[in-house]
Amino acid sequence: MIISSRKNQTVSRSRGLINEKKFREKEALLALEGEKLCDEALKAGLKAEYALFSEEAEKKFPQTVKTLSDVCPTYIVTDEVYSYISGQKTPQGIFLAAKLLDKSENLDRIIEKEKIILLDGIQDPGNLGTIIRTAEAFGIGGMILSGDCADPYSPKALRASMGSALRLTPFCAEDTLSVALTELKKAGFALYAAMLDKTAKKLGEFSFPKKTALIIGNEGHGISQSAAEQCEKLYIPIQTAESLNAAAAAAIFCYEMSRNR
Amino acid sequence: MIISSRKNQTVSRSRGLINEKKFREKEALLALEGEKLCDEALKAGLKAEYALFSEEAEKKFPQTVKTLSDVCPTYIVTDEVYSYISGQKTPQGIFLAAKLLDKSENLDRIIEKEKIILLDGIQDPGNLGTIIRTAEAFGIGGMILSGDCADPYSPKALRASMGSALRLTPFCAEDTLSVALTELKKAGFALYAAMLDKTAKKLGEFSFPKKTALIIGNEGHGISQSAAEQCEKLYIPIQTAESLNAAAAAAIFCYEMSRNR
Repeated sequence: MIISSRKNQTVSRSRGLINEKKFREKEALLALEGEKLCDEALKAGLKAEYALFSEEAEKKFPQTVKTLSDVCPTYIVTDEVYSYISGQKTPQGIFLAAKLLDKSENLDRIIEKEKIILLDGIQDPGNLGTIIRTAEAFGIGGMILSGDCADPYSPKALRASMGSALRLTPFCAEDTLSVALTELKKAGFALYAAMLDKTAKKLGEFSFPKKTALIIGNEGHGISQSAAEQCEKLYIPIQTAESLNAAAAAAIFCYEMSRNR
Repeated sequence: MIISSRKNQTVSRSRGLINEKKFREKEALLALEGEKLCDEALKAGLKAEYALFSEEAEKKFPQTVKTLSDVCPTYIVTDEVYSYISGQKTPQGIFLAAKLLDKSENLDRIIEKEKIILLDGIQDPGNLGTIIRTAEAFGIGGMILSGDCADPYSPKALRASMGSALRLTPFCAEDTLSVALTELKKAGFALYAAMLDKTAKKLGEFSFPKKTALIIGNEGHGISQSAAEQCEKLYIPIQTAESLNAAAAAAIFCYEMSRNR
C-alpha cells in the first residue's frame, strides 16, 4: 500500500523526527536521509527502527530497499508526501529512523583514546558536522560537546559530517565541559584550548603529548572562562587581524595533532 | 520620506541586487548587508552607489547612517519592506549597493604576489566564502576562480568570507583555469594541485617555493584533468578512507603555505 495522506501516523512521525530535536530525543531515534547516510548507519551498527521510501526511490534504489526491508519495517509514500516529510530541497526519497546510541557509555570509552577534541558552544550545524568529519579523517579518537553545541544528530549536521557522527559518536555533555575536563585530567590528558591569549603557545612549534585533549570554542564568544582556565592556550599563527572560521581552525588543529603521533 | 511600497523602484532594484547574480553583473554592483560588511566595503575603497536602511536600523545605527549619507544617496524603508528586500532571516536593516571592482586588472596584480590559491569548481557559496576568509588570514596574496565556481560576491559567500572578498578580490576566470595557469607558469610559479594520486607528495614533508600557486578542486569531481596535468600533486595525510571538506582542506594548505615563508 502506498501512503498518500499527509495525516498518516508514520508520515507525521517521520516529519517530526526530521524537524524536531525534542521529538528525536523523546523517541530516542535518529532521522537519516539519503542512500549514503542510511548505508553508513547500518555499517556503524545502529539498530534500524523503520524505513520509508518515495515511490520514485523504490524503483531507483532496489538494493537499498532490499537491505532495509531485511532489517526493519518499510513504508512507501507518494513522491509528494515524501517532499512534505523531507528537510531537503531535492530529496533522494530514502528515510531511516534508527536507534540513538547509548550516550551514557561514551565518556568512558572516549577517555580510553589518545586524541580528543572538545567543542565549546559550536552552534552552526554545518560547522559542527564539518568538524566531526575532519576529526574522524585525522584519526581523532573521540569528541566531547558542551550542552550548548548544536545537535550533532540533526539532519543538517549529519549531512555535513557525511555520517562521521555515526562512527565517532560525540559525547554530548548536559551543560559545560567541566566534568569531562576533570575526568580527562585524572586520566592523564594534557589539556589545550585554542585561543588567542598573551600566554598562548604557537601551534606548529612543539609536539603534542600522546594523550592530548583540545578545546575549540564558539566563534563569537570563544571558550568559556571556566574551561579555558584548566588548559594551556594555543594559537594558530595568522597574518591578519581577522579570525578563522571554527571549522577551518579545527582542521588545522586536527592536522597538527595527527602529525605528532 | 519613508518608503512603504514594495513596488518602489529602489526597493525592486535592491531586492534584485541581493537575489540575482545576473542583475548584479548587469548593474556592475555588489549587494552588501549588515553594518560590518558595509563598513568593510568602505574601508576596502569600494565606491558606494546608494544605501538603504530600515526605520529600526536608522534609529539603532546613527553612525553608520551618517557615514553612508556622506558618500552616497540613502533611502529609508519600513521594517516590513526591508524584510521583503533582504535575503536574511533576521536582517540588521542596512543595505549598501557598491561598485564592483574592475576585474580586468586583477590577474596582473595577483601574479605579482608570492602565494596564490586557485579554486576549480567550488560550488557551495559557504565553502567558497570560508576559503577566501582563510586565505586572507594566512596572507595568501591572491585568488583565482574557475568560471564554474560560485559567485564570491553573492550575499551568502560575502557573509561567509566576513568581507575578505572585498580585500582579496578574487579573479574570476571566464571558463577554466588554463589561461591563468599558463600565465603563472610564465611568471615562475611552482604549480600544485591538491589531490590524491599515486604520484602525489605528502603535505608537510617539504617546503613550498617562494612563488607557489595551489589548486583546490570541487569535492565531488576534484580538479579538472587539464588543470591537474600542469601541476605537481599534493595530498594531506589522513587516517581514514573519508575525504575532507574543501574548506577544511584549504585551511590546512593555507596554513602550510604560510609556514614555509
